[in-house]
Amino acid sequence: MHNHKSIPEFPTKKIMIKASLPQGTRDFGPETVRKRNHILDTIRSVFELHGFQPLETPAMENLETLMGKYGEEGDKLIFKILNNGLGDPKNIEKAKIAFKQVLEGKNDKHLTERALRYDLTIPFARWVAMHHGELVFPFKRYQIQPVWRADRPQKGRYREFFQCDADIVGSNSMLNEVELAGIYARAFELLKMGVDIKINNRKILAALAEFCGGSKKMNAIAISIDKLDKIGIESVKKELKEKDFEKSQIELIGNYLSIQGTNQEKLEKIKSLLGNNDHGKQGISEIEFLLAHCGKLGINCSFDPTLARGLNYYTGTIFEVKALKVDIGSVGGGGRYDDLTGLFGVPSTPGVGISFGVDRIYDAMEELSLFPTGVSISSNILFFNLGEKEELVALNWMKQLRNKGIACELYHEKAKFDKQFKYAEKKHIPYVAIIGEKELESETCNLKDLRSGEQKNLSLQQLLASF
Amino acid sequence: MHNHKSIPEFPTKKIMIKASLPQGTRDFGPETVRKRNHILDTIRSVFELHGFQPLETPAMENLETLMGKYGEEGDKLIFKILNNGLGDPKNIEKAKIAFKQVLEGKNDKHLTERALRYDLTIPFARWVAMHHGELVFPFKRYQIQPVWRADRPQKGRYREFFQCDADIVGSNSMLNEVELAGIYARAFELLKMGVDIKINNRKILAALAEFCGGSKKMNAIAISIDKLDKIGIESVKKELKEKDFEKSQIELIGNYLSIQGTNQEKLEKIKSLLGNNDHGKQGISEIEFLLAHCGKLGINCSFDPTLARGLNYYTGTIFEVKALKVDIGSVGGGGRYDDLTGLFGVPSTPGVGISFGVDRIYDAMEELSLFPTGVSISSNILFFNLGEKEELVALNWMKQLRNKGIACELYHEKAKFDKQFKYAEKKHIPYVAIIGEKELESETCNLKDLRSGEQKNLSLQQLLASF
Repeated sequence: MHNHKSIPEFPTKKIMIKASLPQGTRDFGPETVRKRNHILDTIRSVFELHGFQPLETPAMENLETLMGKYGEEGDKLIFKILNNGLGDPKNIEKAKIAFKQVLEGKNDKHLTERALRYDLTIPFARWVAMHHGELVFPFKRYQIQPVWRADRPQKGRYREFFQCDADIVGSNSMLNEVELAGIYARAFELLKMGVDIKINNRKILAALAEFCGGSKKMNAIAISIDKLDKIGIESVKKELKEKDFEKSQIELIGNYLSIQGTNQEKLEKIKSLLGNNDHGKQGISEIEFLLAHCGKLGINCSFDPTLARGLNYYTGTIFEVKALKVDIGSVGGGGRYDDLTGLFGVPSTPGVGISFGVDRIYDAMEELSLFPTGVSISSNILFFNLGEKEELVALNWMKQLRNKGIACELYHEKAKFDKQFKYAEKKHIPYVAIIGEKELESETCNLKDLRSGEQKNLSLQQLLASF
Repeated sequence: MHNHKSIPEFPTKKIMIKASLPQGTRDFGPETVRKRNHILDTIRSVFELHGFQPLETPAMENLETLMGKYGEEGDKLIFKILNNGLGDPKNIEKAKIAFKQVLEGKNDKHLTERALRYDLTIPFARWVAMHHGELVFPFKRYQIQPVWRADRPQKGRYREFFQCDADIVGSNSMLNEVELAGIYARAFELLKMGVDIKINNRKILAALAEFCGGSKKMNAIAISIDKLDKIGIESVKKELKEKDFEKSQIELIGNYLSIQGTNQEKLEKIKSLLGNNDHGKQGISEIEFLLAHCGKLGINCSFDPTLARGLNYYTGTIFEVKALKVDIGSVGGGGRYDDLTGLFGVPSTPGVGISFGVDRIYDAMEELSLFPTGVSISSNILFFNLGEKEELVALNWMKQLRNKGIACELYHEKAKFDKQFKYAEKKHIPYVAIIGEKELESETCNLKDLRSGEQKNLSLQQLLASF
């Protein structure tokens, strides 16, 4: 409210309401912000070390940018922004027109023209289309921002949540997939989370479909395969029978889903099942390239031929990352796609991208106690307040400590030591510094470590040197 | 879209639309993001060095949390979120109810129940009210997030913009004002921006009002005083005459507005004008405390008795920060207020806070060329691609460079050197590293500095050491 852009007035009449949050939204208090920042800063640094550049887009997009991009179900989950003025008695005529349109089932643009972004890929596609002529390709961008979806809230499912994406567009090179696998490996290594980076290739699934009635069958196959973990192979086979697959086709799919062994062994079996097919050959070759390069760089990937992820627009490599030791679903995923900007009238721009599931990573790290202890700490040192004379000396010490990067504060008023110690404890401040009469004379402070109880007398220089 | 929370489908039919942004919103491309982050990270680090803790609240709040807090004009500028399902043919009955309510001028909660936050102070107040029992007071929080306002867009005025606030609540101590002045001084020092930190006190203006007809006159006086810079003292006096102030009162205000000199001289004159009044005494005493402490800490502040900022709810100290050398309005402001959480039914929590005007700071720094050169750079080194054998060696070198914090990339495919050099230049990558046949044998790379043209042959260890 101190922002001067528009000059607000605090209301003259006080309307008391109960403070509450909208369903599916959360506040993040100090420690939570520090933990989330630990995750986001780690991922961001890995993106930057790989030469990816940041993009930020506005929360609201034009409605036409978002509608029709996420399927029928997705469209319903978009949060739309009411046009301004509606609801205002002065704009009754405007409102009547808008409402009439809606009730007649027509375009409701008098009611709403903008909506909150649902993901980061469509805004990215829009931006690439708008800046196509100026960009250097291949273009490597990362984007870490919140998105909004009107999902039914449940555990782990929120209406506002962060997405954390990295995409490379304008290149068909499989080296991009190698880089992205490397980003996953390095980020989770820094977060100290053990993961399984799984890869597959849509072309292999396409080959399977071609052996089972044609490419139009691929969706049905992918949907059933995606359920393998949950319902087991017999139920998947039963589902396929209900979807009118022939006996020999179901047997082929069953053999496909039963493939086990090392990456190399799985590849050999896939080759024998599907290697006579163009798509199969291409997909297998891409997997071999990725596994070979990752192997030589010490990046561990698992080839998982059952990985489908239910997404229609992946056209090549598919990624999924699972956390080890925690039963939490996937913590990341992505893949290669063909036509990022076609929707915005710009010629096909091939791309490949990955995403990190920030909220799941947070929950996994909480469960495994992986957050560094520093996340509980804001200030390092609390200077006690013993009165005006001592205050000023403390403030001068603090200026120098802060210039050296050491976070510290001064208790806000003269008070009993008991009260000041309590403040330090509740705020998890590890050190207390007392400058009293004695210390004023000797130009020192008495520094107490609240965790160990140890006390020392230090000059300013000694204090600066010890942090 | 690779996020697995909801499984989206890329549309099967392609709807071509022209890519565009909603009015008053902006994308931030890579260099802009780096410049903005330079500002935000600098401010954030100063907040943290002073023991402030981060808070993040959701973009959407319940409508009742926001309505009635920003005056009549402010309410009109709030972006409301349409309740889900309206506009869907299946929900016609629901829509009819909502629209009927709106057209009858009633509560429109069937149409909309949530809205985008308009500032960071009301969300903060809501959060303090919700967590009151758990917090340690004084509580020092900072919040750096975007807010949304449906202002008429113009130069420097956007519908989505960042606010950057720090507040201390639960303390009446003037030491807080000293800390906040110190935060302004240090942040702008690090940004290399020369500023004038101006201070005033609402109690002094209240004393002036009491001499001019009573405290109910304070608003009228403050509004006119606020225009002093724009319209000059004669026009201000004329306005006051039109507002029915008496001749002697206008003379007093005129004398007040004409006060010049050093901080000390101004204080003396204020004392003689208003020192016999309780509010006057208190306000003067608070200014003296702040100036004295700041002086001893090397923080330069100017006492500006004409600083009013048009805000009703400041009850004590008022801050405003002006950039020197750039005609840009204020780059920061704030002050002390009384009752943060009263609106949410929680007993009065006194507080004081400041804000940084990020967009104006950005424009000022652009104009004064204050951004460090690093903002143009993403990767430090581009490894040329000479084929598969060389690729793998380059990838291994890059892994080690990245582990040491050096951002680098590999050109995505084998191509003519000309093309690869162009990529490096367009991306402002300062170094190119070439590992060819010769270099493979000697286990070195040929490193070229694109700015100077200088070339060297380096082993991996030498390369790691030189960055």
